Amino acid sequence: MIQAGVLGATGYTGFELVKLLARHPAADIAFATSESYAGRSLVDVYPTAPCLDLIPIQLAPMERADVVFICLPHGTAAPMAGAALEAGARVIDLSADFRLRDAVAYTRWYGLEHPAPHLLAGAVYGLTEFARAELPAARLVANPGCYPTSILLPLQPLLAVGACAVGHPIIVDSKSGASGAGRAPRQHTHFVEVADNFSPYAIGRAHRHLPEMEQALSWWTNSPPELIFCPHLLPVPRGILSTIYLPLADGWGEADLRTLYDETLAGEPFLRLLPAGQLASLAHANFTNRCAFSITVAGDTLILISVIDNLIKGAAGQAVQNMNLMFGLEETLGLPGSRK
Amino acid sequence: MIQAGVLGATGYTGFELVKLLARHPAADIAFATSESYAGRSLVDVYPTAPCLDLIPIQLAPMERADVVFICLPHGTAAPMAGAALEAGARVIDLSADFRLRDAVAYTRWYGLEHPAPHLLAGAVYGLTEFARAELPAARLVANPGCYPTSILLPLQPLLAVGACAVGHPIIVDSKSGASGAGRAPRQHTHFVEVADNFSPYAIGRAHRHLPEMEQALSWWTNSPPELIFCPHLLPVPRGILSTIYLPLADGWGEADLRTLYDETLAGEPFLRLLPAGQLASLAHANFTNRCAFSITVAGDTLILISVIDNLIKGAAGQAVQNMNLMFGLEETLGLPGSRK
Amino acid sequence: MIQAGVLGATGYTGFELVKLLARHPAADIAFATSESYAGRSLVDVYPTAPCLDLIPIQLAPMERADVVFICLPHGTAAPMAGAALEAGARVIDLSADFRLRDAVAYTRWYGLEHPAPHLLAGAVYGLTEFARAELPAARLVANPGCYPTSILLPLQPLLAVGACAVGHPIIVDSKSGASGAGRAPRQHTHFVEVADNFSPYAIGRAHRHLPEMEQALSWWTNSPPELIFCPHLLPVPRGILSTIYLPLADGWGEADLRTLYDETLAGEPFLRLLPAGQLASLAHANFTNRCAFSITVAGDTLILISVIDNLIKGAAGQAVQNMNLMFGLEETLGLPGSRK
Amino acid sequence: MIQAGVLGATGYTGFELVKLLARHPAADIAFATSESYAGRSLVDVYPTAPCLDLIPIQLAPMERADVVFICLPHGTAAPMAGAALEAGARVIDLSADFRLRDAVAYTRWYGLEHPAPHLLAGAVYGLTEFARAELPAARLVANPGCYPTSILLPLQPLLAVGACAVGHPIIVDSKSGASGAGRAPRQHTHFVEVADNFSPYAIGRAHRHLPEMEQALSWWTNSPPELIFCPHLLPVPRGILSTIYLPLADGWGEADLRTLYDETLAGEPFLRLLPAGQLASLAHANFTNRCAFSITVAGDTLILISVIDNLIKGAAGQAVQNMNLMFGLEETLGLPGSRK
Repeated sequence: MIQAGVLGATGYTGFELVKLLARHPAADIAFATSESYAGRSLVDVYPTAPCLDLIPIQLAPMERADVVFICLPHGTAAPMAGAALEAGARVIDLSADFRLRDAVAYTRWYGLEHPAPHLLAGAVYGLTEFARAELPAARLVANPGCYPTSILLPLQPLLAVGACAVGHPIIVDSKSGASGAGRAPRQHTHFVEVADNFSPYAIGRAHRHLPEMEQALSWWTNSPPELIFCPHLLPVPRGILSTIYLPLADGWGEADLRTLYDETLAGEPFLRLLPAGQLASLAHANFTNRCAFSITVAGDTLILISVIDNLIKGAAGQAVQNMNLMFGLEETLGLPGSRK
Repeated sequence: MIQAGVLGATGYTGFELVKLLARHPAADIAFATSESYAGRSLVDVYPTAPCLDLIPIQLAPMERADVVFICLPHGTAAPMAGAALEAGARVIDLSADFRLRDAVAYTRWYGLEHPAPHLLAGAVYGLTEFARAELPAARLVANPGCYPTSILLPLQPLLAVGACAVGHPIIVDSKSGASGAGRAPRQHTHFVEVADNFSPYAIGRAHRHLPEMEQALSWWTNSPPELIFCPHLLPVPRGILSTIYLPLADGWGEADLRTLYDETLAGEPFLRLLPAGQLASLAHANFTNRCAFSITVAGDTLILISVIDNLIKGAAGQAVQNMNLMFGLEETLGLPGSRK
Repeated sequence: MIQAGVLGATGYTGFELVKLLARHPAADIAFATSESYAGRSLVDVYPTAPCLDLIPIQLAPMERADVVFICLPHGTAAPMAGAALEAGARVIDLSADFRLRDAVAYTRWYGLEHPAPHLLAGAVYGLTEFARAELPAARLVANPGCYPTSILLPLQPLLAVGACAVGHPIIVDSKSGASGAGRAPRQHTHFVEVADNFSPYAIGRAHRHLPEMEQALSWWTNSPPELIFCPHLLPVPRGILSTIYLPLADGWGEADLRTLYDETLAGEPFLRLLPAGQLASLAHANFTNRCAFSITVAGDTLILISVIDNLIKGAAGQAVQNMNLMFGLEETLGLPGSRK
Repeated sequence: MIQAGVLGATGYTGFELVKLLARHPAADIAFATSESYAGRSLVDVYPTAPCLDLIPIQLAPMERADVVFICLPHGTAAPMAGAALEAGARVIDLSADFRLRDAVAYTRWYGLEHPAPHLLAGAVYGLTEFARAELPAARLVANPGCYPTSILLPLQPLLAVGACAVGHPIIVDSKSGASGAGRAPRQHTHFVEVADNFSPYAIGRAHRHLPEMEQALSWWTNSPPELIFCPHLLPVPRGILSTIYLPLADGWGEADLRTLYDETLAGEPFLRLLPAGQLASLAHANFTNRCAFSITVAGDTLILISVIDNLIKGAAGQAVQNMNLMFGLEETLGLPGSRK
């Protein structure tokens, strides 16, 4: 059994991860930490959680872990990654600390010096479906952001073949459930402020997930398109739906796109292109590790609608998928929603 | 025009009050205070609010007000009431500070010495429909709690005539929307914690509204029944529904109860007994100053279901209704939901 | 007092209209019809509704009305409009029957022969802010669709001056509350299907509001842009938020756009451009007759976020605003949310 | 592997059952029927469902099933139970058809002649925890109603020892999520009617689950108390919370009750008495097969708050738990939420 440590088990992502690991047939939870609830049980925080004692992070026995999952805020994650690696564990970091390869960009977007720049070069960007070659040997994996996961997965095949017209922006209108805003109570996550409301935030070129996405696009094409990214807060607990408007290169029609996806995604256990006439909704992905998406062509524009569960495929599920590949296990092990 | 000051305009109750006063044909808002938003406009907090500058409470020109509404936390309200009264204003306090006549009970339930015990004797308990005699001369009105308002209004006629069996408890199972928990963000008001959930709290003999209700019952009957009170948090922004199980005294049937209510409530502009066969729901009262209720007899038990909008009849609306009577205006002026 | 008849008072739009008319200082409800609830009172359908007897449409005394509001499904509205006009009443039709001036287009989009093509030429498209010249003399007004209202209002000033680049589509990503789907129960409006979900529908070039919008654009510019329109169903009762991505013509920056709006919208009582740094959310418009919008420039793209209450500004409120102008009243009379 | 047939797989209960069976390590789904979706796949109805072809019920190959689960409306279930039994299958009926042992009571409460009265005597009432002796040999199991499950489970130990005072009613104030109302669209399950609302229905002595509960009470005590039962509709998709007010017999205090439950429920995998100071909420049971409950004593009244997931422990989960015992499997097999 893989011994897994979880740093930060009481946030929404950490809890989702613990639930997945508790049912995982090849992993045990070696330890779980919490700042606010150290000394108590996870069941005191989430009534249906597995029984699990929460310890202070200072007491985390890193040396007992084969893999350490880090579910801490950015800035505090990187130092812990260093500590875990030194203790001999492999690391899957669910924070933003190792997503950008460029420490300067990190400082620009996150407003602080990178705490462990020497580790950046060795970090693998763990967008699982496009990182399978690197994951088996990876010691440090940067788990992608939730929005980027929903957006990049269906875009990659298009960019790789040049189906996107050069010189025009791709417009991404995303909507996320409130668990994406984290568990700490804030005015803008108060029930009365969120219920019956719907709000955009950090739109245009302002959200921290933007450089992460443009970095990935630059790997996949020599002429990466500009992204315009508008996230909105949905009055639901979980789920992300991204409506992506992509200017098609000449000659690409819906049939060509379907053929392309059929070829590139054949056998993918968690990616699902919906049949013509169906549109993706949160119900297509919630509570699974899937990314489901639909395509509709309107004139020269492809309307790509992509959905994931932000806590599973957008965070904890993708992290477990990465663990599976890092440790030579079946990729779908312990994960809900895989196709037979 | 009545000049009205509002202390604490940016909580949910304060905002509801400002909305009512802004449309009131006989009142002007003389000033409005806010601790967190002083120096800004109410529209920065609530996008559809009336334009209103927010000042620090220390600068409140009490002497310019005919009436001061206090929407502050208990403990901080009483001293401001004293200041307003000294400046010559009349006061309607929406906090709990003047609801209990007994300073000892106040200390027991609220955990602090009463800040202005000398004012208690002069305070009128402003359950409007049963305070009409005292309101015109009142200088200090204690606006009732939201739960007590929903529960006491339909109970009073029953207790006054002895329709409740002696020696058995009245069981009150109440459910309140999340605005009742206030606007300050807390873990238990986070959208993700409230949505899809439903939770009891402070049940049995533990909620601070209990002594307030038992005090009122003791005014209305010589043998006041014990109350068992179980509030629950509903995943809706507003509204209270109280399901009240009352043991009937011998000889009382549904027809007698309807006759009693017809007689005692005839002409009441905001109290409405629903016809037989209809049950009260939040939709019967939300966004109005009404208390609607239904009665159903099952064996010897009366099931009384009472609904109010916790922010209007349960707080700001009842406060305006009290103001109307204090100043000799038509009781329904500026209030939504009155019967013709 | 203006005598107003309401055909179809028990749908969500009809009920909202009745509420506005009941409080309107210069209008009386002469009669209200309902197919399913004829013979009953509106209060039996909506517990806090004004008292109003519902009659069968066949008995509607058209001759007693100065204006007849039609809140019926398309196809059934047009014949009633003819009957009302013949009886001497003026007509505000909230259905789609008179929105398209071209009967052929009507048949293509709505799948039936237009029931009253002879009335099309005389119908005024009642997007109030841009129909003020025609409304005073209008006898038949086509009240715009809810989505078009949210989208066209902030677009008109841009198209009129050529701020939109020619040759590129305008992308409109709209999100509507569930009351927009009507009151008749359907699988896709079942609480369990809508709650916790978010779904696109009729996207691209498929929604019936598309030709209505393109018709308006063609009035305002000689080179109307193509629209790509993607509506989504939000798990909230009411409100529409449209995120509009508009390719800017050369030389237009945010400052120019603000100047343009300041000049063209100065004095508009219900249109509100938010200050820089604020983004529109449903909370900016719900329960008012406002259209609030924010602008953000990202590269060559203007991100225009526009919100309305779909039942008020998107339907019943705009209808009353039209009535006010048709009858020479103050435009804001009886409508919530106007600026002083 | 146990071959399981499912009659009525596309309602909320049927779908929950299919999900549980699809993951069950000792059962296969032999066939699944649907009236409205015959010929299609379950995935067309529920996007994340397992792949499963839906056949018309007339074609159901009963003879291939070891057990047939019936998720059909009452009245139509009983004849299918007869057919399945004749074909040699065992039957777990999730409808109400075999819950009442008395055909006359069935007619009184359900308004029709019982379709298969000869089967009533052999039916086992499958409240699992109190039916373990009969389930292994049972051929026909009546799966209890959702409300009764939440209420009876924590009541049984109290009634069995006489902890309930004789001569006073037990008051049960229940609140259920909207999936309890079924999937067929109706006015009262429209999103706009349910959201932001909270409504009682069928209160007092009117709900069909009442005789089912009183029947069970009569098995457990010679002096069964009267029940007053008030269900309410919660604006959440799933979950039931029942607040039960029980008059305690002399001498019973909270410590005695805790001892009683500790003794009677020790080892129960799905029943959980919460520690003192904690109150049960929907979050304690949703998405599990648990019944969690809290106890609070107020005067002579025990306030028992019990929660279940109405679709799992209240329906499909309990059905699988029953199947496990009928077929000699580990009771918790394939069910979420068991304690180690």
